[in-house]
Amino acid sequence: MIRLSLAEARELAESILLHNGFNLAHARAVTDTVIAGERDGCASHGLYRVLGCVNSLRAGKVAADAQPRVIDQAPSIVRVDAAGGFSQLAFQAGLPLLQEKARANGVAALAINHCVHFSALWVEIEQLTAAGLVALACNPSHAWVAPAGGSQPLFGTNPIAFGWPRPGNMPFVFDFATSAIARGDIELHRRAGKAIPQGWGVDAHGQPSTDANVVLDSGAMLTFGGHKGSALAAMVELIAGPLIGDLTSAESLAYDAGSKSSPYHGELIIAFDPQRFLGAATEQHLARAEVLFESIQGQGARLPSQRRYEARARSLVEGVQIPEALYNDLKALLA
Amino acid sequence: MIRLSLAEARELAESILLHNGFNLAHARAVTDTVIAGERDGCASHGLYRVLGCVNSLRAGKVAADAQPRVIDQAPSIVRVDAAGGFSQLAFQAGLPLLQEKARANGVAALAINHCVHFSALWVEIEQLTAAGLVALACNPSHAWVAPAGGSQPLFGTNPIAFGWPRPGNMPFVFDFATSAIARGDIELHRRAGKAIPQGWGVDAHGQPSTDANVVLDSGAMLTFGGHKGSALAAMVELIAGPLIGDLTSAESLAYDAGSKSSPYHGELIIAFDPQRFLGAATEQHLARAEVLFESIQGQGARLPSQRRYEARARSLVEGVQIPEALYNDLKALLA
Repeated sequence: MIRLSLAEARELAESILLHNGFNLAHARAVTDTVIAGERDGCASHGLYRVLGCVNSLRAGKVAADAQPRVIDQAPSIVRVDAAGGFSQLAFQAGLPLLQEKARANGVAALAINHCVHFSALWVEIEQLTAAGLVALACNPSHAWVAPAGGSQPLFGTNPIAFGWPRPGNMPFVFDFATSAIARGDIELHRRAGKAIPQGWGVDAHGQPSTDANVVLDSGAMLTFGGHKGSALAAMVELIAGPLIGDLTSAESLAYDAGSKSSPYHGELIIAFDPQRFLGAATEQHLARAEVLFESIQGQGARLPSQRRYEARARSLVEGVQIPEALYNDLKALLA
Repeated sequence: MIRLSLAEARELAESILLHNGFNLAHARAVTDTVIAGERDGCASHGLYRVLGCVNSLRAGKVAADAQPRVIDQAPSIVRVDAAGGFSQLAFQAGLPLLQEKARANGVAALAINHCVHFSALWVEIEQLTAAGLVALACNPSHAWVAPAGGSQPLFGTNPIAFGWPRPGNMPFVFDFATSAIARGDIELHRRAGKAIPQGWGVDAHGQPSTDANVVLDSGAMLTFGGHKGSALAAMVELIAGPLIGDLTSAESLAYDAGSKSSPYHGELIIAFDPQRFLGAATEQHLARAEVLFESIQGQGARLPSQRRYEARARSLVEGVQIPEALYNDLKALLA
């Protein structure tokens, strides 16, 4: 393993992205999210993703200098046309108007269109909770996951993320794939030559498989939680696809045309302002949420992001460690 | 089994509710939902629930003539104070303003407060999809479900329901408990003296149990999908509890004080207007959603509400059948 300070990790990611042709705004926005992932112990959304960014650019599947365009679509809807660039800069562009609309109206939606997407959603959710807002976000990806009762890839890993602000504390945040596991985790098993657990995927005939190559290349992943997880995956396809005028996971995969680039589609973020729901009683009701959190932790259960926050606290002191093979692959992109 | 036409079933439910003291508006609104449940083959949300309505009234836990009060809380928020009555009439009262706000702003929320709640959410979701809106709804219930990694009841069964309008077709609708199973299903097992499957609940020590009495009386139910289902259950507690200034499932159960009445809490419904997101391109993008549905059904998988719609088609012709014991229990409430 190679140890890097967060500053070194950031410098490495940003210089690779710049060297390979991304403009400064995109390089910084993408670096922010991969460093956040690495810092929080989410290797599958960490520095590893820089390889994919460069791959997507070389395949002609992402615009290195796209200028996001913010559209005031309706009193409670912001759209951002990412113009074929990575989603991160588009999110940054739309965030101020989303916050303004949520505070004015109580609820508002941000629809990001035509973006290339690989980011963990909690990075964006935390920016909304930091502003005192409750937030929900989701997006399709590539058609890799079979619906419950089926055998063919149709849904993406379709993450759902949620955040709740906790004044004076780390926010309550979860962010999970509606697939049984993130595709990045299966990819890491493949890179490591390890078998995957039962329940993550099936082969081309719909039979259970523990071979990462089979599941990734010819079979399909499975949703978590059977038909309920499958229903949620379908909801994500709909509300972060056709509802916002953007691609489903099947359409995104067709667009990819075998280049193995990051998915190209949309993203939906919904923000709620507790102040608009609760007025003067906001503080009192946020305190009742704290009782819920205490009741979870008081019986020995964990809050969803605790492990991530613990990794963050460590990384801020000790930096991060990445496999030497990954470090070498990254350095090679500076040649 | 006793066979009833839908008109007979409706007449039976409404007359029991009126005879026991509910006013006409509440009796009709409640009857609408229990008949919809029975008609669609959802016995756990069907005529059986009329027993609970009368029990709640006799226990002094529901107001038989509450007048819902509609509050224009913010440009995208409607609140309805149900004033201690059943939720159905409050939903009816808030629906027109929710629709208006969703159409004006693109996204809007309806927060129902201080309601007594037992209804299946799809009944409400279908009213929004019939108006061409996309809808998401959820509510807490009573603290019956342990968080993942815990052993004590904290969450309700916390249903999440979603609907997508399909012009010229039945809407895409799902409605599921974030518990492994609806509490009503465990109650039906208890009434029938049957063991429940593994994975539905634990005993007071957190050990798996197949005894419905143990799970209902001294243990806890489990969420579906492990830590992901548990995270969703927590989200429902937060956004349909403190966010709308209403009770968590633990607070609702404390308020119940052992009377075994229907839960008393709030409900959150979010409506999205595709026209506001998509404008002139609405039809084109709704057609892309149809491709998704065809891809699910084309590989032999089912859409979430198909079984329910098939039951509906049968019931409209043949009426419904209920156990004789239930029929007798219901008739006894007319004495």
